[in-house]
Amino acid sequence: MRILGIDPGIAIVGFGFIDKQGSKLTPVQYGSIQTEAHTDPGQRLKDVYDSAVHLIEKYKPDAMAIEKLFFNRNVTTAFTVAQARGVLILAAVQKGIPVGEYTPLQVKQATVGYGKAEKKQVQEMVRMFLNLSAVPKPDDVADALAVAICHAHSYVLTDKLNGVGKR
Amino acid sequence: MRILGIDPGIAIVGFGFIDKQGSKLTPVQYGSIQTEAHTDPGQRLKDVYDSAVHLIEKYKPDAMAIEKLFFNRNVTTAFTVAQARGVLILAAVQKGIPVGEYTPLQVKQATVGYGKAEKKQVQEMVRMFLNLSAVPKPDDVADALAVAICHAHSYVLTDKLNGVGKR
Repeated sequence: MRILGIDPGIAIVGFGFIDKQGSKLTPVQYGSIQTEAHTDPGQRLKDVYDSAVHLIEKYKPDAMAIEKLFFNRNVTTAFTVAQARGVLILAAVQKGIPVGEYTPLQVKQATVGYGKAEKKQVQEMVRMFLNLSAVPKPDDVADALAVAICHAHSYVLTDKLNGVGKR
Repeated sequence: MRILGIDPGIAIVGFGFIDKQGSKLTPVQYGSIQTEAHTDPGQRLKDVYDSAVHLIEKYKPDAMAIEKLFFNRNVTTAFTVAQARGVLILAAVQKGIPVGEYTPLQVKQATVGYGKAEKKQVQEMVRMFLNLSAVPKPDDVADALAVAICHAHSYVLTDKLNGVGKR
């Protein structure tokens, strides 16, 4: 199955497509959607949405995994990110793609195995799981791949619990 | 000009279309978009978006006015509303409709003339401005009409400042 991981934002959206065969994870494509700071906020939302639709149509993921928001910065920023998150989820649902939502804690547990892991540890595990020569930059891209890996591992776990075995 | 006022939400989105000719405001259509609580969050976002697109195509507004979010309830609710706000703004921008954003303070000042006005006062002014026999229910609908009126009044003010006169 192909999983699209998303680190939501308005200035920069990290994305990462990975393929999961059995327990093997392979990176397909990853990068970022970026919007200009001085353009109309509505236009920026449309740019994020249009880019997401384009990526989904091109790489045809079977599932999308996106980070749940938590409250770490100012209110205005958080709302802006949530709005972008809304149009990103919309893009997936319109294509019939199921959306999994994971907290930062779940992402850390699924990658490093420890909920209080440092950002650098998560990034290093992303590099190892995907057999990359370096940690993808900017951080948003590594974060997007981390949530995709989290989704892949959740599926393995769900399968085991259901007695289906690894896919 | 025709203005669509929006009170954003995920369980209920208030909407109100008003026509502005000179200083005269006429209600065109108002009501609410409602989504089922126990459905998938992504599906609810899509339902809000689809309904907004339908309304915009049917009533062809020249502008959309939407309340800015402020932080009055729990974080999860606020993020959910912000996500819905994102897809509502997207629906307008995709149709080339300019979006005006107003704080609750601006809406109160534009309707009652007093930033600390009570909710009931705003609703009563909505009823009077639009010559309605009763305050529209639920509150979300009256709030949507209030932000549409706020946008209409802001335009008059802008025109005066620009020496264009009333439209």
